[in-house]
Amino acid sequence: MDYRGRQERLLESLADQKIDVLLVTHPPNVRYLCGFTGSTAALLLGNDGRRFFTDGRYTQQAKEQVEGARVVISRTNPVTAAAQWLGEKRGQQVLGVEAEHTSLATRTALSRALPRTVRIRPVSNLVERHRMLKEAAEIEKIRAAVLLASGLFDHLVKSVRPGIYESDVAAELEYQARKAGADEMSFPTIIAAGTRSALPHGRASRHRIPQRGFVVCDFGVILDGYCSDMTRTLYVGRPSEQDRRMYQAVHAAQQAGLDAVRAGVSAADVDRASRSVLRRAGWARYFTHSTGHGVGLEIHEPPRLAAGQRELLSVGMVVTVEPGAYVPEQGGVRIEDMVVVGDHGPDILTPTSKELIAI
Amino acid sequence: MDYRGRQERLLESLADQKIDVLLVTHPPNVRYLCGFTGSTAALLLGNDGRRFFTDGRYTQQAKEQVEGARVVISRTNPVTAAAQWLGEKRGQQVLGVEAEHTSLATRTALSRALPRTVRIRPVSNLVERHRMLKEAAEIEKIRAAVLLASGLFDHLVKSVRPGIYESDVAAELEYQARKAGADEMSFPTIIAAGTRSALPHGRASRHRIPQRGFVVCDFGVILDGYCSDMTRTLYVGRPSEQDRRMYQAVHAAQQAGLDAVRAGVSAADVDRASRSVLRRAGWARYFTHSTGHGVGLEIHEPPRLAAGQRELLSVGMVVTVEPGAYVPEQGGVRIEDMVVVGDHGPDILTPTSKELIAI
Repeated sequence: MDYRGRQERLLESLADQKIDVLLVTHPPNVRYLCGFTGSTAALLLGNDGRRFFTDGRYTQQAKEQVEGARVVISRTNPVTAAAQWLGEKRGQQVLGVEAEHTSLATRTALSRALPRTVRIRPVSNLVERHRMLKEAAEIEKIRAAVLLASGLFDHLVKSVRPGIYESDVAAELEYQARKAGADEMSFPTIIAAGTRSALPHGRASRHRIPQRGFVVCDFGVILDGYCSDMTRTLYVGRPSEQDRRMYQAVHAAQQAGLDAVRAGVSAADVDRASRSVLRRAGWARYFTHSTGHGVGLEIHEPPRLAAGQRELLSVGMVVTVEPGAYVPEQGGVRIEDMVVVGDHGPDILTPTSKELIAI
Repeated sequence: MDYRGRQERLLESLADQKIDVLLVTHPPNVRYLCGFTGSTAALLLGNDGRRFFTDGRYTQQAKEQVEGARVVISRTNPVTAAAQWLGEKRGQQVLGVEAEHTSLATRTALSRALPRTVRIRPVSNLVERHRMLKEAAEIEKIRAAVLLASGLFDHLVKSVRPGIYESDVAAELEYQARKAGADEMSFPTIIAAGTRSALPHGRASRHRIPQRGFVVCDFGVILDGYCSDMTRTLYVGRPSEQDRRMYQAVHAAQQAGLDAVRAGVSAADVDRASRSVLRRAGWARYFTHSTGHGVGLEIHEPPRLAAGQRELLSVGMVVTVEPGAYVPEQGGVRIEDMVVVGDHGPDILTPTSKELIAI
């Protein structure tokens, strides 16, 4: 990855934000900018210096990984060390901090450690805005993660049968993911069967798969740092006509969402495309979440595909399209693919069939 | 769990903090106070009302789980919904927010949504201070998590052999953990073999276990919401005299740390007890992290057992004791148990032997 190039592009955007130096502490942002994969670090990027601060646990790892910034191993908290280093410089400075990832406690600690000549300015999603537009090499990594995960789906289908625990299905899936080379899962695996399929975030539990009903399977892996995310909904037993209609409505809504993905449309447009299909079919009030989200180094990152989101999609963004319908205490359906935004339409990464599988 | 009792005790401490109502958004704190296990919620606790806000994904789950607070399903972000609800009340109010878990962006959003009559006051670790002292029922849950994880250790030892990937050892361990009923792992499993054992946070990777050297195995599970954490270091091949000395020094340091754990000593005292053993044996400069941390609903929570930490240990705290030594580019050793602070000494939860196992 071209960490130095990323740093250069970020530095160019500092002037627009009226800041002299940016403090980056959110681990995915730190990783994006300099390659460090540990959990605790502070990266200072300014036109007159780039310094990376971490603690003694990461001495060797920082030396191996960090590019484009001088590594400082601090005895204190890396943020405090960064503030002290800044304090040794002369003249007025404006220090940008990540508004979404800097706590009030950290701000207080920074204020104490910094001299009066340094002013703190929170900036919103600055690194995330760069991360939204994936480089070709990133898209290939994401594609590899998606293919690894979707390659486990046939095995997953075979492991689903009435009477076994949802958590055993997840255990089997996660084991196969690891054996196939995944670093880890990108979020807690959702295997939500029967009435639990009505819980959009029904993490695999010690509930047994019933004789009949939907089974929402939502899972993803992290491969070489990049996340995948997919959902398929199976059916155990013979679906009723009503169940089939619900599935088909979500399927059609998901297709409409995918069809809407292209450069220049807004994030809200994609949400509207999916939602209006469900509205016409009478299921809209059971679609209780947004249509999708960006994916990359994090499982949820900008943009958000939801009502009111004016962000315009651009070539190179990678998002999920995942409408669903959930009837409380009965059951639910969700179908989710990952897709790269292209000039003329979507490049759908997830190859898995979306026909309803009855087991 | 006695959620209402916890809320009552928290409410009693609000006056000391000069706040009228507390906004809780950190998921483990929300769970501790009302039982909700989802990822997105805002809990408002004041003497004239208790409200729980979440979004439509969690309608059913909130209804099933939340105790002691009225559930509001909001169309907007739960924090914004909470602010709007507060805004409908009359009179001056001071709203406490979690200093460690409220971002500058959230504070800005809150300021915009709140009327001028509500003043925001960050409070530090208020819920965490309650959580530090575990109830008997919590200690039993933690004990069960520790026993589940330590019960996997013999299997883990059998899976370690030269030539296989560290990540395959982790895959096997995590599969067994799930099958044994764990909700998930409490952190990314560390299997760090050979020179990688010198990385204190060497997550299991696609490196093969070498013919010879230490293998640091640090892992834990979450069972019914509560975390476990343990480390043992194995040796592949025949350890040299120097390797044995290093292991014995860490073993002795760990025992000294455990022996120091009792009500009334400071967190720094425990750190000092371990560190001074390593100092006398000549390994202190290779011990590059703190000696331990609290464990409960989170894998890392207060207190921190480190130099300068004046917090006094109290009966019912649950902490790790985990000194280590890491010689860069050569190898490392860490040994970690979990322990409950008692009146007269430690109740060591982790039953696994600490004798050096050579494979």
